[in-house]
Amino acid sequence: MQQRLHVQPSQVLITTGSQQGLDLVAKVLIDAGSKVLVESPTYLGALQAFAPMEPSLVGVPGDDGGPDVEAMAALAPGARFFYLLPNFQNPTGRTIGEARRAAIAECAQRLNLPLVEDNPYGDLWFDAPPASSLAARHPHGSIYLGSFSKVLAPGLRLGYLVAPLALIPKLLQAKQAADLHSPSFNQRIVHEVIRNGFLREHVPTIRALYKSQRDTMLAALARHMPHGVSWNAPSGGMFLWLRLPAALSAVDLLPHAVARGVAFVPGAPFYAGEPEHETLRLSFVTATAEQIDAGIATLAQVVREAIERGGA
Amino acid sequence: MQQRLHVQPSQVLITTGSQQGLDLVAKVLIDAGSKVLVESPTYLGALQAFAPMEPSLVGVPGDDGGPDVEAMAALAPGARFFYLLPNFQNPTGRTIGEARRAAIAECAQRLNLPLVEDNPYGDLWFDAPPASSLAARHPHGSIYLGSFSKVLAPGLRLGYLVAPLALIPKLLQAKQAADLHSPSFNQRIVHEVIRNGFLREHVPTIRALYKSQRDTMLAALARHMPHGVSWNAPSGGMFLWLRLPAALSAVDLLPHAVARGVAFVPGAPFYAGEPEHETLRLSFVTATAEQIDAGIATLAQVVREAIERGGA
Repeated sequence: MQQRLHVQPSQVLITTGSQQGLDLVAKVLIDAGSKVLVESPTYLGALQAFAPMEPSLVGVPGDDGGPDVEAMAALAPGARFFYLLPNFQNPTGRTIGEARRAAIAECAQRLNLPLVEDNPYGDLWFDAPPASSLAARHPHGSIYLGSFSKVLAPGLRLGYLVAPLALIPKLLQAKQAADLHSPSFNQRIVHEVIRNGFLREHVPTIRALYKSQRDTMLAALARHMPHGVSWNAPSGGMFLWLRLPAALSAVDLLPHAVARGVAFVPGAPFYAGEPEHETLRLSFVTATAEQIDAGIATLAQVVREAIERGGA
Repeated sequence: MQQRLHVQPSQVLITTGSQQGLDLVAKVLIDAGSKVLVESPTYLGALQAFAPMEPSLVGVPGDDGGPDVEAMAALAPGARFFYLLPNFQNPTGRTIGEARRAAIAECAQRLNLPLVEDNPYGDLWFDAPPASSLAARHPHGSIYLGSFSKVLAPGLRLGYLVAPLALIPKLLQAKQAADLHSPSFNQRIVHEVIRNGFLREHVPTIRALYKSQRDTMLAALARHMPHGVSWNAPSGGMFLWLRLPAALSAVDLLPHAVARGVAFVPGAPFYAGEPEHETLRLSFVTATAEQIDAGIATLAQVVREAIERGGA
């Protein structure tokens, strides 16, 4: 059964996309040198949003099920917050399951560690909704970031954050200093579009489309990729995480792929600490099935040639 | 004859209102403790936008004609930039004239002091356009901030900055970290609205309206205000600056005025340094002529009562 986050309207701040939520959180919670915990890897845009406040970023190691809770507990003392994307993470597509979420929330509560939970992709599940949010489990110590970009339109730049009431005045002050307010015109548009339940009809069509695109990409990877390449099978969202043979660097591979008309995002910039150079992010949501299959075939050929060269 | 600022498209960055331009400038040009020069008083929103980067703000003294250039020169060494609103300034309505602009630009060039020129109100002139921009006089050392908020619609949150090419990559990086991009939907709307010259027809109607509202307020002030109260006569924009008898504090006066249905903005928060407590800002642009006259009559009565009490 889903635990729900109970929210008063005064806890909500409309933001210019959830990216701005990260900027405001940074301004309010980070001082120069503040320790901030992030997943390893984590969303590059968060690293960039936090950077101007000059934090000391620490990646919490983990596995395919999420961050390691013992490592989290060991790193927690003195940290301002732990930033997480529990659902279909950017870049890995990783989702944290029920048991790990319970343990993370318990650990955060016990150690009084604030959580910043970023959830732009949570509605884009394929077979079943993800487990309850971390914020619902740790409501007095969590900031929750949401967005209309992935379910309606990124070009409207409309997101929101939900924070404990005590933090709202500081966040509001930072918001006013950043851009006075998010476009009221866009807020009215989104209100009109969603008020009669449009998202309830629209989002299932996105889920079905992205699921079929994921399936196409998984089939293409299995069909084309040489031995030594591995990848995950995300249960929602937009991204899949691929691991090259350890001798290869995704950064070095990129120009070879781009020269053949295929782009990906190398994994290295998503790490706060030591990167894993053999990782890369694939997006399966903007290409047709034919393009996905052809693109993966081309990428596989580029990887095969790099393996034969003994490096990218 | 107007000196024009010659701009390449690659020098322009679209911002979520010109307020965001201030946020980006702060992130790129200010480190903790950096000296930053501002007019005295200056736009409160700029003080708020700069604050998260923890500058050391220094107000440059001046007179009704603008900042004192000798004071500017004395304060310039080590300053990251001088932030100015040369046209119909918020809060004072002050405009810097031709000779002072030339002297400020010459001083900035000679001392290698960057200028950040904020110009949201420049198109709202009443009788004649203001003198050429500071950026046109010091193009390689100026960042210029513009906005569609005052000539089209604030609710679209669309502004822009023009910067020397060398600064654009850092500003762009800060922009992406702040909100990825300004709403593309709003950019398309504004493009459609202005591409056939709508602003050339529309802005003169705003100028005429605001000029008549300014005239109404000046007449009402002359008619109602007691001896010892003084004010300026802005040649454009939205604001007028009023000075109470020196014994009165505008902050203390405010609740008495609000209780009678009249609001203003006390001047003190607009000062980076020691405030002038007897100052306040009046806006003449959102009320009808009848409301302006009645409001000023009420405010005059509140001031008169405060003078009789010997303080607010």
